[in-house]
Amino acid sequence: MQKILLPTAALSFLLLAGTALAAPPLATGAPSADAGIAALRDAALKDDVAMDIIEGLTTEVGPRPAATAKEADARVWAVAKLKALGFSNVRIETYMMPAWVRGEEEATIVAPFPQKLAIAALGNSGSTGKKPLEAEVVYFPTIGDLQAVPDGSLKGKIAFVSNQMAATQDGSSYGVYGMARFVGPNIAAKKGAAAILIKSVGTDHHRVPHTGVTRFEDGVAPIPAAALSVPDAEQLERVFKRGKPVTIKLVVTPRFNGKQESGNVIAEVPGSDPSAGIIMVTGHLDSWDLGTGAIDDAAGVAIVSAAAKRIMDAGTPRRTIRVVLAGAEEVGSFGGNAYYEAHKNELHVLTSESDFGADRIWRVDFAFPETGKPVAERIATALAPLGIGKGEHPAAGGADNALFVKTGIATIDLQQDGTRYFDLHHTADDTLDKVDPQQLRQNVAAWTTMLGIVANAPESLIAK
Amino acid sequence: MQKILLPTAALSFLLLAGTALAAPPLATGAPSADAGIAALRDAALKDDVAMDIIEGLTTEVGPRPAATAKEADARVWAVAKLKALGFSNVRIETYMMPAWVRGEEEATIVAPFPQKLAIAALGNSGSTGKKPLEAEVVYFPTIGDLQAVPDGSLKGKIAFVSNQMAATQDGSSYGVYGMARFVGPNIAAKKGAAAILIKSVGTDHHRVPHTGVTRFEDGVAPIPAAALSVPDAEQLERVFKRGKPVTIKLVVTPRFNGKQESGNVIAEVPGSDPSAGIIMVTGHLDSWDLGTGAIDDAAGVAIVSAAAKRIMDAGTPRRTIRVVLAGAEEVGSFGGNAYYEAHKNELHVLTSESDFGADRIWRVDFAFPETGKPVAERIATALAPLGIGKGEHPAAGGADNALFVKTGIATIDLQQDGTRYFDLHHTADDTLDKVDPQQLRQNVAAWTTMLGIVANAPESLIAK
Repeated sequence: MQKILLPTAALSFLLLAGTALAAPPLATGAPSADAGIAALRDAALKDDVAMDIIEGLTTEVGPRPAATAKEADARVWAVAKLKALGFSNVRIETYMMPAWVRGEEEATIVAPFPQKLAIAALGNSGSTGKKPLEAEVVYFPTIGDLQAVPDGSLKGKIAFVSNQMAATQDGSSYGVYGMARFVGPNIAAKKGAAAILIKSVGTDHHRVPHTGVTRFEDGVAPIPAAALSVPDAEQLERVFKRGKPVTIKLVVTPRFNGKQESGNVIAEVPGSDPSAGIIMVTGHLDSWDLGTGAIDDAAGVAIVSAAAKRIMDAGTPRRTIRVVLAGAEEVGSFGGNAYYEAHKNELHVLTSESDFGADRIWRVDFAFPETGKPVAERIATALAPLGIGKGEHPAAGGADNALFVKTGIATIDLQQDGTRYFDLHHTADDTLDKVDPQQLRQNVAAWTTMLGIVANAPESLIAK
Repeated sequence: MQKILLPTAALSFLLLAGTALAAPPLATGAPSADAGIAALRDAALKDDVAMDIIEGLTTEVGPRPAATAKEADARVWAVAKLKALGFSNVRIETYMMPAWVRGEEEATIVAPFPQKLAIAALGNSGSTGKKPLEAEVVYFPTIGDLQAVPDGSLKGKIAFVSNQMAATQDGSSYGVYGMARFVGPNIAAKKGAAAILIKSVGTDHHRVPHTGVTRFEDGVAPIPAAALSVPDAEQLERVFKRGKPVTIKLVVTPRFNGKQESGNVIAEVPGSDPSAGIIMVTGHLDSWDLGTGAIDDAAGVAIVSAAAKRIMDAGTPRRTIRVVLAGAEEVGSFGGNAYYEAHKNELHVLTSESDFGADRIWRVDFAFPETGKPVAERIATALAPLGIGKGEHPAAGGADNALFVKTGIATIDLQQDGTRYFDLHHTADDTLDKVDPQQLRQNVAAWTTMLGIVANAPESLIAK
């Protein structure tokens, strides 16, 4: 997922996105795209490189959670692939980070209607220990209802927080309904709960719970925290409607595994003019453990790599394109942050991230200095034939380039259609078969178009 | 699932269904339906009883596998519900049967690309024991490929049998592709395999494996047999395409639990003319253990009960309607067979089963004696406004009335649309949210129409 998911950021994103509508695809009288760019764009609509990358990474590595041996396998795999594609300066940059590892997980309604429920522990969840926790459950229809009860009132109980998330094209419903996951466990812990179950932050109706990271404040001991699949949460709501006390037996045994190695994979298309700066494009190599991370984020890895290769194959660009395949995004952007710390003194002039699946791009947003505005206009013009409209709000970047975005460098968001993203996000169902090859190609075409323009633009992309 | 699923029956069903096309909804010049029947039919389009039954059974009992305490809970639940609805002679009839109980199940690719696969043991599967079985896997694209290898050639290996099932409205693809499950394990065992994995007999793309019963011939020791979810099977096929040896570690620990009690729940709408015989309508109370059995077959239970209640509420019918909610259908029609043995000497004149989900009825098939042909015509006429066409082939009945159908009594199949049935069939995803209330009501309306006509028809329904 592209957006920075800390609650405040999520909320401000929501406020911005609430009024955002796609602009008409082509302003009246706008010039058509440069013929060379148009040719690159249209050729990319037949791209097979991106699908090959997704297929390879999800098949030959599969799930690759942060700071595990599988994530290390992904780095080795990516280095070999990027070298084979012809990139320069392909390398791994490692860092250490705290690792969290899933254990057993089982939830059973004990009373009034005994039956199992499908759950997945949230990242950073505490453990029940091997001995099941059996406790009364208190139902909160929304995170606001949980927030409203007095401190200490949940002592020894399991909180169940539901939500009514609906799909949105721009993904903004994640910011609203995701709060149950982002902050629900911390709130429940502070109110004394023994554990928390949330309705998955998802828009599907399958028995595949949505995991994802949660965070406990310093000084708040992590409690067991897990997501019920959407059908299971609905079932539990129906059980509550009967008005009888509800007891659940819970086993959730993840563990914190100390500091482990993670890393970024970096590759370059060297530019002819070092003084023109670096264009950093990024997606993340790690995935959650439940699926094979096809849409999150093998797709992003594939899209940025395939597009950069197309520019490379078209001849040396003016600016260096640096592909940063970040590690450990899912659990707190450790890779993106490590990259920033290591490279912040190099001249980065533009950044863009792909981390919202593989469905088609429908909108482009810019955060450009005045000097770069003509470049943005040329990009919007060249993207219009792909069905992409120019947005009305500034680009916000994503988790893996957040620190660079914060410095004020030029940022582009090629916004993907999120309508079905949260059917799959962080579930076992995030697998290769969910990638639509035609929509994936449209992504590659849009990225190729954008990179072809920004990598060669004569204008400065730096604020004066 | 409605059809008798022994391989030979499945194949003959396929041959029949292959050429079946829906007849035009209303033959030219056909009389319109009796006004009383039309009124019953149209009122049933607002039915809420069926949804209430599905909601109650799936929520308050949930999964209810054959010959378990949960199936017993379902009988108690059904008796209370049918009494509350006003049925007469509501009772449980028990029988003993062999019970099979799921254990742990876990499959992991050990080489060449380590990762977990989602599996579910098939009913009657053998056990690996607690110690994992680690063995080389041999890939068979189809059941025919497995059949073709020499006896003994799979010694110590795990067979993996795939299939390419596609959705069909009439469900006929189940007969073809289901063979991997129906007979694959028995064939693999006879060829010396240590275990078998099959691609789920399903048409979805979710990480929810499709269980279902398999059978081993007398004298063939059950081997561990499990279904991979469709995405997992596709993943394994991609792994095989790399051309390297594939090793899987498998734990499947179901057990045979001796003879346990199961039972049928029976309820009646007593008729005014005992000599006119009994109309037996049936669905099954048991479900697989993975889901809550909403479409398989709480829906059938609900549809036949709701329709029978509507006839009851309209006044005493001529013929007795007997609702038989069978136990233990999933594992071999033990309930339907026990009912037949106990009641075969009573005068049953017509039978019909609902066991193919809750989606709309699109075709009606009859197997009627000559004397009953005018009744069949009246039914077809009255069903036409519901979008139901008369089929060209004889009704075949289902698993729970198979022995009665075999005696030659009048049979009606109200064929449901199976296009999405095998997305859900025998998976954890068979839950309440999959039931479309409007399509469910159309089912109740069709059943009410049919029962209203056959229960009161002055014609004989018995072959002279």
